Amino acid sequence: MRQTAAEGIQYDRIRAVEWEQDRVKLIDQRLLPAKLEYLLLDSLADGAGAIRDMAVRGAPAIGITAAYAVVLGARSRFREDPRRWRELLEPDLEFLVQARPTAVNLRWAVARMRGVINKVSGDPVAALLDEARRIHGEDIAANRRMGGLGAALIEPGGGVLTHCNTGALATGGYGTALGVVRAGVAAGRIASVYADETRPWLQGARLTAWELVQEGIPVTLIADGAAAYLMQLGKVRWVLVGADRIAANGDTANKIGTYMTACCARRHGVKFMVVAPTTTVDLATADGDAIPIEARAESEVLNYAGRRIAPEGARAWNPAFDVTPADMIDAIVTEKGVVEQPTRAKIAAMMTG
Amino acid sequence: MRQTAAEGIQYDRIRAVEWEQDRVKLIDQRLLPAKLEYLLLDSLADGAGAIRDMAVRGAPAIGITAAYAVVLGARSRFREDPRRWRELLEPDLEFLVQARPTAVNLRWAVARMRGVINKVSGDPVAALLDEARRIHGEDIAANRRMGGLGAALIEPGGGVLTHCNTGALATGGYGTALGVVRAGVAAGRIASVYADETRPWLQGARLTAWELVQEGIPVTLIADGAAAYLMQLGKVRWVLVGADRIAANGDTANKIGTYMTACCARRHGVKFMVVAPTTTVDLATADGDAIPIEARAESEVLNYAGRRIAPEGARAWNPAFDVTPADMIDAIVTEKGVVEQPTRAKIAAMMTG
Repeated sequence: MRQTAAEGIQYDRIRAVEWEQDRVKLIDQRLLPAKLEYLLLDSLADGAGAIRDMAVRGAPAIGITAAYAVVLGARSRFREDPRRWRELLEPDLEFLVQARPTAVNLRWAVARMRGVINKVSGDPVAALLDEARRIHGEDIAANRRMGGLGAALIEPGGGVLTHCNTGALATGGYGTALGVVRAGVAAGRIASVYADETRPWLQGARLTAWELVQEGIPVTLIADGAAAYLMQLGKVRWVLVGADRIAANGDTANKIGTYMTACCARRHGVKFMVVAPTTTVDLATADGDAIPIEARAESEVLNYAGRRIAPEGARAWNPAFDVTPADMIDAIVTEKGVVEQPTRAKIAAMMTG
Repeated sequence: MRQTAAEGIQYDRIRAVEWEQDRVKLIDQRLLPAKLEYLLLDSLADGAGAIRDMAVRGAPAIGITAAYAVVLGARSRFREDPRRWRELLEPDLEFLVQARPTAVNLRWAVARMRGVINKVSGDPVAALLDEARRIHGEDIAANRRMGGLGAALIEPGGGVLTHCNTGALATGGYGTALGVVRAGVAAGRIASVYADETRPWLQGARLTAWELVQEGIPVTLIADGAAAYLMQLGKVRWVLVGADRIAANGDTANKIGTYMTACCARRHGVKFMVVAPTTTVDLATADGDAIPIEARAESEVLNYAGRRIAPEGARAWNPAFDVTPADMIDAIVTEKGVVEQPTRAKIAAMMTG
């Protein structure tokens, strides 16, 4: 298979997802920060598995991985039957979309790849790979733009709190909310960075801290429950989070615990910023009630690092996400601009603008 | 040494602290639920170490352990010098009180033991052991009374959320907030019990879940950050917590994360109950600002079970407690009664009543 050039992609130092020698290469994020190991995906099913099992996570990174996985799926189906490959591929695409239900970027990326599938003639691989790379490059460019837009909202000097991981590992590169952290620290607008450790998966402790240490940005981890006390002491002025899906009215699904930080922020006059590309905005979802919330395995709460924490007999409730209502969000930042005090009308205007 | 009878102590099945054959026997709570092992303390210094290193934790259990540790200290100093033992013991008592700064029960128990020290003649051990046992027995009796009082406040049928561990392990037996859970479940007033896992020490996942499994009470663990979403879904009507110190105005210091649950509860109309014996009330502390908050080691957040979670180079902020203001508390339940919407005047009246 011909490998197209990677021009247009301004790669980050940390590459969560990459196309390399006819395969998809992923950082296995389950092993960080103890080990930096890569997974090589040869098939669409490998891609769906990596998404489902959270070797790759973060809505934009999931979307990009899915786009590359479509290349793998199409290659295989085209080899199998150069005439009927589209028909054979269709259930594969549906299978891929089902890997994680909340992140709308997954569905969006597959839909965009389907646009190429529908019009390509002959071997589809080169055209699909170009499209996947375009998705990837656009995501990084969007993140850099959002970094600047978000950082400009932050009055210089205060601290920020972030939840989960929204950095290069969660995206094509640079990050969404963590992109704002990078830009804000570089511009001297952010004086200190706190990160929720983000149970149960510890994306904050394992991934956000790892990225920031790589960047030389000092980071202080807190237990998620300490967020309210941190705010009571006046140590942060903004909460910066990403999103897995933003509904048409601005309600935002993001990693479990995000809504908790929003409740605490409201009480303390701390501002709340959602940073996500427009690929995360889903105008077909009216509001937060219509966002499906993925329930994950109890074992993620009952165990840590292969070791049982809780006694046998205890159960757990493990929703992967929660929804922060639009009226608790001060600003939604996308690559198309900033929506303050989001409403359905403002979001519609931003999306069409 | 003569061993006095244990009459008056209605022991629980789970005994966090016990006097056994001239020594203090503690469940080593750091090892639960994987292992049920005991520590045997032979000296006051052993007792201070067990408190500081959290082999025993929970304000009432710390107080009881300290009382027994005073017996050990007095025994040793009396053997050393039967005339000057009081003078020799005084710095030991101060050392013991410093083991953990926030729980006022520790200071209270030592002060009460000092009352006996000041008036005993001859070998002080029997009199001191009687007093320690009285403290222990009174705590269990207080807990049983609070269980009934607290459960009566709960309208039948809803769920409750508890934070940290406030059960037999945290007290002389039966528990404070978890005593209300026991009583409320037994009376059919509580339909479901949720427990915050309570990072960083995981007292909820490790200890509360273990106790409730022993009791046959179904328990569902959640990541601390999931509390707000749980409330948004209407799954709990009350938050039930213990206390490490209640100031004269009702401001309450308790395990880090408690104030977070209070912020979430306020937003969702979920009621908030503090359950603690009057030994936890400190009229000498005017309000929450005057409560010293213990800062614990960063390693408790950066590691779990001896395994590094966070990358080298990351820092952590690890306050052991936070303070929930009185105006966010619907009821403070002590063995002397229930104070609804606590104020300085109501608390003063309850304490003298």
